[in-house]
Amino acid sequence: MDDLEEFARYRKRMNERLLSVDNLGIKRFCALDSRAYEKGALDVGTKELLGLVASTFLRCNDCIAHHVIRCVQEGVSEAEFFEALNVALVVGGSITIPHLRRAAEVFDQCKATGRPTH
Amino acid sequence: MDDLEEFARYRKRMNERLLSVDNLGIKRFCALDSRAYEKGALDVGTKELLGLVASTFLRCNDCIAHHVIRCVQEGVSEAEFFEALNVALVVGGSITIPHLRRAAEVFDQCKATGRPTH
Amino acid sequence: MDDLEEFARYRKRMNERLLSVDNLGIKRFCALDSRAYEKGALDVGTKELLGLVASTFLRCNDCIAHHVIRCVQEGVSEAEFFEALNVALVVGGSITIPHLRRAAEVFDQCKATGRPTH
Amino acid sequence: MDDLEEFARYRKRMNERLLSVDNLGIKRFCALDSRAYEKGALDVGTKELLGLVASTFLRCNDCIAHHVIRCVQEGVSEAEFFEALNVALVVGGSITIPHLRRAAEVFDQCKATGRPTH
Amino acid sequence: MDDLEEFARYRKRMNERLLSVDNLGIKRFCALDSRAYEKGALDVGTKELLGLVASTFLRCNDCIAHHVIRCVQEGVSEAEFFEALNVALVVGGSITIPHLRRAAEVFDQCKATGRPTH
Amino acid sequence: MDDLEEFARYRKRMNERLLSVDNLGIKRFCALDSRAYEKGALDVGTKELLGLVASTFLRCNDCIAHHVIRCVQEGVSEAEFFEALNVALVVGGSITIPHLRRAAEVFDQCKATGRPTH
Repeated sequence: MDDLEEFARYRKRMNERLLSVDNLGIKRFCALDSRAYEKGALDVGTKELLGLVASTFLRCNDCIAHHVIRCVQEGVSEAEFFEALNVALVVGGSITIPHLRRAAEVFDQCKATGRPTH
Repeated sequence: MDDLEEFARYRKRMNERLLSVDNLGIKRFCALDSRAYEKGALDVGTKELLGLVASTFLRCNDCIAHHVIRCVQEGVSEAEFFEALNVALVVGGSITIPHLRRAAEVFDQCKATGRPTH
Repeated sequence: MDDLEEFARYRKRMNERLLSVDNLGIKRFCALDSRAYEKGALDVGTKELLGLVASTFLRCNDCIAHHVIRCVQEGVSEAEFFEALNVALVVGGSITIPHLRRAAEVFDQCKATGRPTH
Repeated sequence: MDDLEEFARYRKRMNERLLSVDNLGIKRFCALDSRAYEKGALDVGTKELLGLVASTFLRCNDCIAHHVIRCVQEGVSEAEFFEALNVALVVGGSITIPHLRRAAEVFDQCKATGRPTH
Repeated sequence: MDDLEEFARYRKRMNERLLSVDNLGIKRFCALDSRAYEKGALDVGTKELLGLVASTFLRCNDCIAHHVIRCVQEGVSEAEFFEALNVALVVGGSITIPHLRRAAEVFDQCKATGRPTH
Repeated sequence: MDDLEEFARYRKRMNERLLSVDNLGIKRFCALDSRAYEKGALDVGTKELLGLVASTFLRCNDCIAHHVIRCVQEGVSEAEFFEALNVALVVGGSITIPHLRRAAEVFDQCKATGRPTH
């Protein structure tokens, strides 16, 4: 899971850089972003699946890696995981297939190493 | 709910036109599209929320109207509905706001006239 | 074919407005845009199908109407037309379906009224 | 300027609907959105041009109408306005042309009726 | 052509992983995707050019590599290849230029090593 | 700043390849692209910020690196730089965050090595 850990370190370092900027808008946006995935009327796993499908449509591999890790942490099953990706595939088309490959790869890496805890 | 009914009629008429084309690929795709939202490991309401969030990111008002109607039919609550839209808003940015307005409008129209059954 | 004619008039009037602006970049871009569809190693019909598929992915109904009219003028057959749209559908996903409906509608309007000549 | 006024009324009514939802994330996002265009190191006109170019890339006519009105209110000149749109055109391609037509139309409507004040 | 071969291996391995999932929708979608490029009213080369232009608009380098390889296999000429990319460039704007660079690079790699046969 | 220099070399080499193609449309587009950022009613720094925001919405890291380098060359301040990125973030949503990380990284690299002059 080396590249996931390297990605997590880079992500953490650069997020801290962004939050060090004297710009209240950026700080507040990042706070909003975290809060959108907290438990409410919908549970956290469902929200992470929404985030995963969103990232797949918008075709952002960094975001996909993040949401796959979070889905695994929340105990999303393989069947649920791929049903959500199937919605993404049908709505977003074959252009999403490279991102399904990436999502499956990260999912398998997380499973192979136990649930990630960072 | 006049414009929703007009939209539903236009949608039905043109879908039949598409399915009348001698093109197996288009026919099969439409079948796949319907099946992606059927009950599986995830329930239908969750899948419709995935479809709603997808349509909001991809900024397609026709698709939004369709998934809002389906969400209401599946008994998605107002709190669940807007939490899903909040994920769409945070991930997709203010560019999605015109589509949140449209989604809220259709949601209110459905509620005002009872659950749509078509 | 009233709405197509109204669209054509609006398009013509506003294009003239854009070209009246004292901005060389905009003028040159519009010239490049026209030239991209002229006959070269690829014939005009093929280029219009490329433009149609592009407009469908990018989900622009005005551009779709324009390229459908041009395809009909160039003698693209119904089978060729829907095969190109099927590529668009598979690559772009169900989000393109509302635009396939629109493309089919304009195609039928053009056929019903004879080949458009404007 | 009737359709702009109708759009403004619809926009206001539905924004109030969105803010009436018991969802803190949506409320905070809308506040962030307004604040992003306030004067800072960059002046308001420049920020509105950034918003206009963004809306043109992302191809949202409602957002374009909003930012054109704001640009005119901030005294952006015709030359500045179309230079910004030329950047949008070159970066975003001919797919943005329908939106340049709309932007020019709203710009002319604003100029014809004096600076909008709402 | 080392990186193309590595990409082909990764693509093959992960496609097999996706097809191993117990999800009928994903399996059927992948079958539809292959069939969309088979000979019909349009020849295979034209369909691959449609796929190439689509991939360039949607800015997916993996898909671009795949369709460039297929175009070369189908005997698409350099003039046809770049005319199709010019349509993509004009419709999609300068944002597609990094992908034209990638397409040209893969095209040259294919030519330098003879037509790829895998 | 090694990877930026490698990127600049690759970019230069492949741009020359594209311009070597016997295709007038591609040559003219590249000329238009350069000219869109020249001083006019708007100054060069403002135009580069427009290009940066565009690249961030459209999520193209190569284009972001190019415009960040140009912004630093034009003397854009850190406050102006992040205010423009904040507009991009609010309009484009959290999907732009990976690109804000990249923009900040390139900005810091440019500052650390003095203003780039190539």
